[in-house]
Amino acid sequence: MPMINVKITREGATPAQKKQVMAEMTEVLARVLGKNPETTIVIIEEVETENWGIAGEPVSERRKRPS
Amino acid sequence: MPMINVKITREGATPAQKKQVMAEMTEVLARVLGKNPETTIVIIEEVETENWGIAGEPVSERRKRPS
Amino acid sequence: MPMINVKITREGATPAQKKQVMAEMTEVLARVLGKNPETTIVIIEEVETENWGIAGEPVSERRKRPS
Amino acid sequence: MPMINVKITREGATPAQKKQVMAEMTEVLARVLGKNPETTIVIIEEVETENWGIAGEPVSERRKRPS
Amino acid sequence: MPMINVKITREGATPAQKKQVMAEMTEVLARVLGKNPETTIVIIEEVETENWGIAGEPVSERRKRPS
Amino acid sequence: MPMINVKITREGATPAQKKQVMAEMTEVLARVLGKNPETTIVIIEEVETENWGIAGEPVSERRKRPS
Repeated sequence: MPMINVKITREGATPAQKKQVMAEMTEVLARVLGKNPETTIVIIEEVETENWGIAGEPVSERRKRPS
Repeated sequence: MPMINVKITREGATPAQKKQVMAEMTEVLARVLGKNPETTIVIIEEVETENWGIAGEPVSERRKRPS
Repeated sequence: MPMINVKITREGATPAQKKQVMAEMTEVLARVLGKNPETTIVIIEEVETENWGIAGEPVSERRKRPS
Repeated sequence: MPMINVKITREGATPAQKKQVMAEMTEVLARVLGKNPETTIVIIEEVETENWGIAGEPVSERRKRPS
Repeated sequence: MPMINVKITREGATPAQKKQVMAEMTEVLARVLGKNPETTIVIIEEVETENWGIAGEPVSERRKRPS
Repeated sequence: MPMINVKITREGATPAQKKQVMAEMTEVLARVLGKNPETTIVIIEEVETENWGIAGEPVSERRKRPS
């Protein structure tokens, strides 16, 4: 019954990677907190880099700068 | 002023169905809790089935299996 | 499996009222969208009036003003 | 480290406008609450007008009516 | 920079258990998706059982029933 | 009608500070995006430091360490 919401920037996560994240996070709550994995929900939200700001600036701009 | 957020998998809900959900949920909060319907917000988020996990597995894969 | 999140100000909703909101919202998604009521989650968040702003002002202050 | 989530209807906000919102909201938390701007996150979610209800009705329909 | 929000019922999770959930979920995103663990945020929200509904009924009532 | 959700650690923000955050964030959306301030909602969630993780560790523990 727990609910896990994961927000990441949309930068190419594959279905296989997202499936692995779902499986492992569900397992963590089952093992550590005893939550029923059958009813655990994981929602992954992929946010466009122009809509995600860090340090007051969109990620889409930070990615363009030489580091 | 209440805020209702509904997350469902994106599997073909029509505009008419979503409108009905908005109208009825707003009415529930008005009738049961006395909330002002004029300022009640309902946001429906439709999540891709590959981004929604249940029991550690994406819905997109569960849908493919014979039940 | 749908997930409904209801945010309201904390102003005395009773357990019976909250139970009724859960039951009716779950029924709406089942009837209108065909969602399985057994796995529908409703989370009610009651927010302190000093933490809820509308029109740039906390509800805790608006409630004190004569209307 | 604070996390600001802004939900608006998708009605043409430009990248430059969204960048300005990120910069100014980050600055508000730094100046008023002393939060570190370097680790402040702002996520802007643009919601389709048919998925945003107010007063029990989708914004997509309200926009069509003469005011 | 990813943001993980975990909602569970408030039923006695200890600080040590919550710390372990934070550490392991952060590690999952780093290993599977290459996300920087230094800037990964995990927020755990513990919801009162009378405010969490499943199958149209508060968890606080389900817990009282013999199973 | 926009909805701004601000999550911060619970570390002593005063009602006056929270009111100022509400007023200024509402003003930003009105000035930059033309949103109606009368219907803009700001919800501030103050999260216990033991429930907020950064870099896989609760803030409650980081605060105890000499920097």
